[in-house]
Amino acid sequence: MPDVVEQDYTLEQLQQVTKAINSGQFVQVRQTLAEIPPCDTALLLESSPLKIRSTLWKLVDPDIQGDVLEELSEDVRLSIIAKMEPELIAAATEDMDDDDLGEVLRSLPDPVYQDVISAMDSQDRARATLALSYAEDSAGALMNGDTITIRPDVSLDVVLRYLRLKEELPQGTDDLYVVDKENRFLGSLPLGVLLTNPPDRLVEELMNEERETIPVSMKESDVAQLFERHNWISAPVVDDQSQLLGRITIDDIVDVIREDAEHSLLSMAGLEDEEDTFAPVLKSSQRRSIWLGINLLTALLAAFVASFFESTLDILPILAVLNGIVPSMGGVAGSQTLTLVIRGIALGHVNQTNQRFLLGKEFAIGALNGILWSLLIAGVVALWQWDFKLGAVIAFAMFMNLVAAGIAGASIPLILKRMKIDPALAGSVVLTTVTDIVGIFAFLGTATWFLL
Amino acid sequence: MPDVVEQDYTLEQLQQVTKAINSGQFVQVRQTLAEIPPCDTALLLESSPLKIRSTLWKLVDPDIQGDVLEELSEDVRLSIIAKMEPELIAAATEDMDDDDLGEVLRSLPDPVYQDVISAMDSQDRARATLALSYAEDSAGALMNGDTITIRPDVSLDVVLRYLRLKEELPQGTDDLYVVDKENRFLGSLPLGVLLTNPPDRLVEELMNEERETIPVSMKESDVAQLFERHNWISAPVVDDQSQLLGRITIDDIVDVIREDAEHSLLSMAGLEDEEDTFAPVLKSSQRRSIWLGINLLTALLAAFVASFFESTLDILPILAVLNGIVPSMGGVAGSQTLTLVIRGIALGHVNQTNQRFLLGKEFAIGALNGILWSLLIAGVVALWQWDFKLGAVIAFAMFMNLVAAGIAGASIPLILKRMKIDPALAGSVVLTTVTDIVGIFAFLGTATWFLL
Repeated sequence: MPDVVEQDYTLEQLQQVTKAINSGQFVQVRQTLAEIPPCDTALLLESSPLKIRSTLWKLVDPDIQGDVLEELSEDVRLSIIAKMEPELIAAATEDMDDDDLGEVLRSLPDPVYQDVISAMDSQDRARATLALSYAEDSAGALMNGDTITIRPDVSLDVVLRYLRLKEELPQGTDDLYVVDKENRFLGSLPLGVLLTNPPDRLVEELMNEERETIPVSMKESDVAQLFERHNWISAPVVDDQSQLLGRITIDDIVDVIREDAEHSLLSMAGLEDEEDTFAPVLKSSQRRSIWLGINLLTALLAAFVASFFESTLDILPILAVLNGIVPSMGGVAGSQTLTLVIRGIALGHVNQTNQRFLLGKEFAIGALNGILWSLLIAGVVALWQWDFKLGAVIAFAMFMNLVAAGIAGASIPLILKRMKIDPALAGSVVLTTVTDIVGIFAFLGTATWFLL
Repeated sequence: MPDVVEQDYTLEQLQQVTKAINSGQFVQVRQTLAEIPPCDTALLLESSPLKIRSTLWKLVDPDIQGDVLEELSEDVRLSIIAKMEPELIAAATEDMDDDDLGEVLRSLPDPVYQDVISAMDSQDRARATLALSYAEDSAGALMNGDTITIRPDVSLDVVLRYLRLKEELPQGTDDLYVVDKENRFLGSLPLGVLLTNPPDRLVEELMNEERETIPVSMKESDVAQLFERHNWISAPVVDDQSQLLGRITIDDIVDVIREDAEHSLLSMAGLEDEEDTFAPVLKSSQRRSIWLGINLLTALLAAFVASFFESTLDILPILAVLNGIVPSMGGVAGSQTLTLVIRGIALGHVNQTNQRFLLGKEFAIGALNGILWSLLIAGVVALWQWDFKLGAVIAFAMFMNLVAAGIAGASIPLILKRMKIDPALAGSVVLTTVTDIVGIFAFLGTATWFLL
């Protein structure tokens, strides 16, 4: 029974494989790849720099390419597919689940997509067309058609004999779905219920008619929230006539949960979702450049505000030395609030009912921390420069900026959300603009008024 | 079949309940709570400000308090438990899963813990002692003892009849575990295999002997990575003699995945894990204060570096106006790299084999973006101030800082990890210190040398 600590084992594997590729021992690599499951191959690909990755991919058995593609993170998968011939892409998609098939096809540029579709056989083409008919990021795009359906008016014994005719059950089957003649969803029969009741009982006596269904158009983050809240392993997807269309399983939801949780993290730094840690330099530079450009604009805006006080800075150069402190603290405090509120929105905690309370709370925290740190900074600056008026100026500016940061950090994501803009992406830029401008204005403005 | 869009339904519920509590209609609230599942009650509690939350909790039926506590996020659960009497805590833990029981008990201050333990009956006390014997954040703390075990030398028919004796199967059972007389793990029998094979076959013919087991001491993030990679729904936990101790199910892993993914986000803003969006003002202020204090120190350090150039700033006050731009851009660029590398480490992509490559890549991106943006900022500043030497100075400083930011952003988390310090928490502070100091030094230093 294998129980080596996994991570060390994978690191060892990666080192072995990398060394083997670098010394041209391709037969050995092919051997290793044949012995490990597709998910491990996927991890090796994700952890390899591009050159190694391309070589590694060429050594993957074409029969399992589809399985490996399914396991890859989106960015890496797309970069590999971008270099594959359409016929090979079509072949790889044969064994894919419907949801992965849809995702791959959606990502192809139109001409490539046409080639891949024509290279498919008619059955797969029908599957593909169906998968693509659902909106990206909807329940339809997440689901698979591999449901097991039974009728309500049969006994459990009939169900058991029916299942024995099958070679195997689809992965992650914990429920059988009960449908009527028109394929309308009536309820679910958990395997646990099937196995713990006498075989002469009827399905309709034992089925769960209250089993919640997922509308095919529901957004995937809402689906993920439901799965998390109810601890589901799978869930049926229906259309608006209650026709059973497919099912969603927890492993797809886990991907959504991780992506959603990472989305805030990546967006707040101006990065795209599912970044490939080893994407080529040019590609990464391009993406980050746009973000840097936007931030440069806000930095220039702050400098522009400071330029109004150039004469003040000329007279009191000590202000130039201290000028960075207040905006910096405001930015940090504001970021904390922003992060919390963005997370709260993502978790479904924040809504119209409680957001007024949240704003009030963040204002209070801003004020409390504002008082504490403005007194402290006043003391430090006053002693450092032996100038108590200066201490008073920076204290006042600090207090104003910390309060402003709290209010801005809480209200910006709420306003952005109402404007249907992603709060994680735009929020931090807007926030730093606010805290920089308020901070500079409060500090230099008060200094001008009070010290000159 | 209920299929109202969940989020609107919950919002409506929350508004109803809040209104009812505010107008003292407690009977109505009790009614509502009796009709909704524990997970929905948990969401209501998490989304309510403290006063509403306390009142709401008092209206929850004591019989399901344990179930509701299980569904709550950690921070909220702990805040509620902190106000409960030991006897009530003991009663609520009766129905809890082993892992939640362990988590609750671990969180209690010692005197309260003693009271709760003495209030338990002997069976629960034994369960509690066992649950607490495992390290927090280990597989042992995540697992539950509710496994179904069978012998290898029986037929599937015997297994089916055995299961029918049970009233129900534990939630999320997809595998039966095959053990020998000494309770040593031999393999697993998936329910799918049980249901699709003739009943006269023997368990040992069909069981999966290659089923990977989880060592009881494995860290929970490693367990989560395994679950994600292999798409497991449950997994057996064994000790070093291969004795079966329990099993871990995907719903506990989903919690770990979300916490791990959020950890980076929260830590980089200086927030603790599982922050309660509605924690009391004082509690939130305290936590954030420490972070603000650390950042104030780095801001003062940057000001100290700037103070060396006070005479330069006196002569050329325009430098004071532009002084914020270079450190700001460095901070943004560095944060992108830092975020990516931290995420890469968390996903298991970054290790000794490829980190040199990663550093090289980030240096190249820093250089590329450095060239682009330094030329641009040179142009903007030169035209704004009609001073081309000034443009050259800021261009040089920008380039230096963007390259430094790239290298720092990549190497800091790797160094911190080697020092066993959480890279997400300390990383951003160290990074902004580096980019601030390098930025100020490069800009004012070059200006002093070149323009004076």
